[in-house]
Amino acid sequence: MQASPLITLTSDFGLNDPFVGVMKGVILGINPQANIIDLSHGIASHDIREAAYVIGMNYGYFPAGTIHVVIVDPGVGSRRRNILVATDRYCFVGPDNGVFSYIYEKEKHALTVLDITADRYFRRKDSSTFQGRDVLAPVAAWLAQGTDFWVFGEPITDFVVQHYQMPKFLRSGLRGAVVHIDKFGNAITNISRTDINNLTRIGKDYLLKVFFGKKVVPLKGCYSEGKGRSLYAVINSSEYLELFINLSSAAETCNISIGDRVDVRLAR
Amino acid sequence: MQASPLITLTSDFGLNDPFVGVMKGVILGINPQANIIDLSHGIASHDIREAAYVIGMNYGYFPAGTIHVVIVDPGVGSRRRNILVATDRYCFVGPDNGVFSYIYEKEKHALTVLDITADRYFRRKDSSTFQGRDVLAPVAAWLAQGTDFWVFGEPITDFVVQHYQMPKFLRSGLRGAVVHIDKFGNAITNISRTDINNLTRIGKDYLLKVFFGKKVVPLKGCYSEGKGRSLYAVINSSEYLELFINLSSAAETCNISIGDRVDVRLAR
Amino acid sequence: MQASPLITLTSDFGLNDPFVGVMKGVILGINPQANIIDLSHGIASHDIREAAYVIGMNYGYFPAGTIHVVIVDPGVGSRRRNILVATDRYCFVGPDNGVFSYIYEKEKHALTVLDITADRYFRRKDSSTFQGRDVLAPVAAWLAQGTDFWVFGEPITDFVVQHYQMPKFLRSGLRGAVVHIDKFGNAITNISRTDINNLTRIGKDYLLKVFFGKKVVPLKGCYSEGKGRSLYAVINSSEYLELFINLSSAAETCNISIGDRVDVRLAR
Repeated sequence: MQASPLITLTSDFGLNDPFVGVMKGVILGINPQANIIDLSHGIASHDIREAAYVIGMNYGYFPAGTIHVVIVDPGVGSRRRNILVATDRYCFVGPDNGVFSYIYEKEKHALTVLDITADRYFRRKDSSTFQGRDVLAPVAAWLAQGTDFWVFGEPITDFVVQHYQMPKFLRSGLRGAVVHIDKFGNAITNISRTDINNLTRIGKDYLLKVFFGKKVVPLKGCYSEGKGRSLYAVINSSEYLELFINLSSAAETCNISIGDRVDVRLAR
Repeated sequence: MQASPLITLTSDFGLNDPFVGVMKGVILGINPQANIIDLSHGIASHDIREAAYVIGMNYGYFPAGTIHVVIVDPGVGSRRRNILVATDRYCFVGPDNGVFSYIYEKEKHALTVLDITADRYFRRKDSSTFQGRDVLAPVAAWLAQGTDFWVFGEPITDFVVQHYQMPKFLRSGLRGAVVHIDKFGNAITNISRTDINNLTRIGKDYLLKVFFGKKVVPLKGCYSEGKGRSLYAVINSSEYLELFINLSSAAETCNISIGDRVDVRLAR
Repeated sequence: MQASPLITLTSDFGLNDPFVGVMKGVILGINPQANIIDLSHGIASHDIREAAYVIGMNYGYFPAGTIHVVIVDPGVGSRRRNILVATDRYCFVGPDNGVFSYIYEKEKHALTVLDITADRYFRRKDSSTFQGRDVLAPVAAWLAQGTDFWVFGEPITDFVVQHYQMPKFLRSGLRGAVVHIDKFGNAITNISRTDINNLTRIGKDYLLKVFFGKKVVPLKGCYSEGKGRSLYAVINSSEYLELFINLSSAAETCNISIGDRVDVRLAR
């Protein structure tokens, strides 16, 4: 027996309320074989940007065929659409509010986006306050069941794209920002290893310097190379530049917030 | 192969301690096919009332056959009984402390309640401090395995019912209360759409008005219809009246607490 | 079809970040049948001692064959080894930093420890900041798949043991410490029922007295035997001595912290 494709859930629901459990009940009511994984329910309330980061940096760690559901949806019940996004290896289900902007960027070579309109797949009584349960969960369950992608709606090309999280290439290097603070107080930026490689390819004889404000932050290979309570940088496990203090919270100690600027420059 | 029925868990254990994981280990040790879903472990410690609300408003979103386990049990180890409740579509397992009061109300047409006494189904060494693990989890696992409902104990009719959460019909309308604040700061009341329909059926030519204290709260169709930082009401996705502020916390902004009174009145 | 062995996860990752979900994605990418249970992700950041307690007191509630993965790893990326520990009934996977010290003590009659070196089982690109995902998760997935234990590395005997959590036998009785505060504010000590039995076997005509500092704490059979807001002791569901206040937080009320001393003495 072939295992059902995985379904992952990412939301701003938290885990105290029954929202997540109810979505799982709805999915398993349709598709009893579904295998559901929580990616994160700790997105800040209504924070599309953080959700875009979390799904965009992590969808690739799941096996091909995985269906990623994202429910961070400040406009629920309004006229914003629900969409289905297909790439070579994955499907994504969520509101059309820019939450998949990273995916559009990374997977632009092979991207199909549908406006989900086939309401015969929705819960009979679709509420206007919890479409995660009434629209997105059922669509994911039917998809995992093997229902054909194309039956859920019409292809669109005017889906909402947000460019907020791409670093900028300046003459002197790269300008990025902190996009997430993790539980350990590490400050993750939107500057990827690829971005840095593109930079150093140009300036081979130069040294790479990371700046947090005006402060130079030495680049290390792993957390335990950091000494004392000083701020360091590392290319993290998702291949993004991250600021850290070994065994301590960089965010607290250095007062780092989401949106703070981080620069990578080439210096002699 | 038929999938095993779902088992849901609702408790005040939180997710930091190993309590929930250990219950799952015990269930899967008995029934390796069990499919276990967390409904909520964020119930306030010892708060039977909140647990009654969470299970009572959400059990119906799970497929027929689901076994709902509730462990909010300030009297664990004392003489309070553990019970098994069967309705047309579901089984419930938990302490006899009123946590299933909503179920009794909603399912009174077809309700069987057993006092769980068949200790051959318990963990060999039943502790007096963690019967969730030693009694409730094993009973749920055996039930999901197909063990006959009637072997677990004797039917009873004197189970504990709490009436704390039913709204009152007054001459001027309905008087309810806030029973839950969700993660977004929405304040959910115990007044259902059915209650409101019963009211309006009587007073067709009247307008419906929602009051929080003396303040009139306009009724909207979805969150995004709310303007600015004003308080609104909506019939939420569980079909209960809820107070909200669009994209903001109603509970914080308007200082709403569990137990606060909410009225629905008919006015000219 | 035989169910795949269980895999449990214990970490200091919390549940807000995507770390846990990503590890599950990696495991299920290798072994789609894997059944993964969260034991706890609420370990304090980098707190090897608390992790040792949580796994050490709870691994036995899972069915034989379960693979327990622990990722509390302040030294990730440094030269500390990753190890595989086998006992009669379980496997353990984690860093060699003492996190399995309780297991070594309890299972010393039948213990094998391997240094995990077989990098063909790791993720292709092993990062130096998230070996939970790149080394431990894959090894657990392959083990659950049936891969032979011995292929993952070489046996070692110089694994790191921490003795921090064993109570001391003094002339006047037992000296232990608070090792965990649970969600209810109960203060769990490292003194087991077995330790107490060993003590009372020696001094049969004596009374057992529990001391928190200089304060005598009466021993009860279950929480609900505690009266008012007084501090009591109970042998808890994991068979360890625990300080509690019925329906209230002992830790808050009596200002109890991890590391606080608890004594058990024999008195006339």
